[in-house]
Amino acid sequence: MKRHVTVKTLAEQLNISIATVSKALSDSHEISAETKQRVNDLARMLNYERNPAASNLRSHRTRTIAVIIPEVANNFFSLAIKGIEEIARQHNFHVLIYQTHENSEAEIAFTNSLVSGRVDGILISVTRSTGNLAHFQSLIRQIPVVFFDRSIEIPDAFSITTDDYESAFEATRHLAENGCSRIAFLQGLDQLATGQRRLKGYRDALDQANLVQPQPLVLSGTDDPRQLLQAVAGFIKDKQPDGILSSIEEFVVPCYYACRELNIDMPGQLKLVSFSNLQTAALLKPALSTITQPAFEMGRLAAACLFRILNNKEVDPCELPLLRSELIERESSGISGI
Amino acid sequence: MKRHVTVKTLAEQLNISIATVSKALSDSHEISAETKQRVNDLARMLNYERNPAASNLRSHRTRTIAVIIPEVANNFFSLAIKGIEEIARQHNFHVLIYQTHENSEAEIAFTNSLVSGRVDGILISVTRSTGNLAHFQSLIRQIPVVFFDRSIEIPDAFSITTDDYESAFEATRHLAENGCSRIAFLQGLDQLATGQRRLKGYRDALDQANLVQPQPLVLSGTDDPRQLLQAVAGFIKDKQPDGILSSIEEFVVPCYYACRELNIDMPGQLKLVSFSNLQTAALLKPALSTITQPAFEMGRLAAACLFRILNNKEVDPCELPLLRSELIERESSGISGI
Repeated sequence: MKRHVTVKTLAEQLNISIATVSKALSDSHEISAETKQRVNDLARMLNYERNPAASNLRSHRTRTIAVIIPEVANNFFSLAIKGIEEIARQHNFHVLIYQTHENSEAEIAFTNSLVSGRVDGILISVTRSTGNLAHFQSLIRQIPVVFFDRSIEIPDAFSITTDDYESAFEATRHLAENGCSRIAFLQGLDQLATGQRRLKGYRDALDQANLVQPQPLVLSGTDDPRQLLQAVAGFIKDKQPDGILSSIEEFVVPCYYACRELNIDMPGQLKLVSFSNLQTAALLKPALSTITQPAFEMGRLAAACLFRILNNKEVDPCELPLLRSELIERESSGISGI
Repeated sequence: MKRHVTVKTLAEQLNISIATVSKALSDSHEISAETKQRVNDLARMLNYERNPAASNLRSHRTRTIAVIIPEVANNFFSLAIKGIEEIARQHNFHVLIYQTHENSEAEIAFTNSLVSGRVDGILISVTRSTGNLAHFQSLIRQIPVVFFDRSIEIPDAFSITTDDYESAFEATRHLAENGCSRIAFLQGLDQLATGQRRLKGYRDALDQANLVQPQPLVLSGTDDPRQLLQAVAGFIKDKQPDGILSSIEEFVVPCYYACRELNIDMPGQLKLVSFSNLQTAALLKPALSTITQPAFEMGRLAAACLFRILNNKEVDPCELPLLRSELIERESSGISGI
């Protein structure tokens, strides 16, 4: 049987990414004339057809996609998985879930084991320590990959992300407006673009409010979750912030316990906002102010993007939407409770 | 290459379960003399060796086990997965996670797709509506399977469970001792042995405390989580319980919201204890009293049991330990807070 020609075929033969092929075929201004020529020549030579019928899905061998995430015990990721599964069900695909537990070596081992034909595509939110771009550059040439939330800086990767910069900026300004002058940032994603965007939003808001401190009030995450409480309590005791913006949900429980341990009144002495999809946020004492990401919608969109690629439809990485998060102000940042 | 003879080989050829073969080989009193004879005869004929070296693990094709659970967005299951992964890592195996979302048809479809050689073994906590025992009876003859927490009533299945009856009994007695006289039970696992054991513990404690009501105060779960809040609020309004024992974590958030909606003071007018591994239980307003299952340990034990089977070591289903849960009394059931 003659092999069906897909964007993946073209990408493999030209040793460029699927995204670059897509962009070249849709005449994107980002792609050089030379590359467009090479892609279009090969497409003609191999009789590549755009937008073939959905029946091409039949050619997928495994009818399975993999979702690689740091943790299922995180409300953002479990909601995103639900969105992914909804789309996968519509296409009659199975979803396999892999946890990396923030271990980038496990991540590389998983993805390597997957390209051998175990799944048709991969959705991934990378570990906080992922630095190996070469690995991912190679991966996206071998199998369709869509990044969501925690993406990496490869220009032609498909990524679905939220407005990290704007949300962090807005939350920091909210803390400043509610009287905080020593606002700290708890950083969990130091090495990732996602974390850098959140940090920049925080810094720019401090700058605008004239609240930049001589010594930055930034705590980096720790790899061992058992050490988080100790790290957070030590940081609060030492730096005495009166406001905290936490960039990941994992800091929330340690922050609450640290305040109890140090006998600090929240929100009286310390106000808190966290990126979080915690289901119990409104039920905590005090109710937690959150930056709530549209996790379910993000999973749906990332999966829809992957299935477009699997269906050989054109996807322009630059036209993927940036989703908006919502700042929900509650008691922990000084809003009166019920 | 000659195929290595395992308990699975024996089970397949005799059309009995792996557990029965294990028990027959270890001369269990539960197995008839006739079956023991058949198993031992075949074992001799095929040169079956007990306790072969660990190098037999090499014969496993996929080095992958599947975990099939209702939801990852449940702290019990996400902790259990961590325990499973810890053991799998020691054996250098991958773990695939499947969610059934309480859909027993999805469960059957998943398990059917797995027996074709995609994984070496399965750990499963069944859906709340699982009633198809014939399917599982067939499954456990085809591939090593260990049930955890939510098991089914097949006598020779491998199951790791907790003391459901005792925990429910103790929690109900705790509510009675704290002054509750109309104690309700929120049932999420109606059709499962797990749920029946919890219900029986609740009923026996009511009986002992002379608190049995003419009309049972039992609410059955609903398949649609969006309807849970409405169902719980309607139940509380209608039945006016002054104590609630919830058999699954999914009822916790609806209970808190229902009390706020109905302007019911918890714990003043209504006390609550729930089976739950919620990480924020102690931080809620009021702090939640829980029956906390040893989820991580349960995952570890279930996985260890599966690897013993994969390693052709004898495992007696009747000697698997019953794990103990812990009743943690907090404000929601009337204990003074901090």
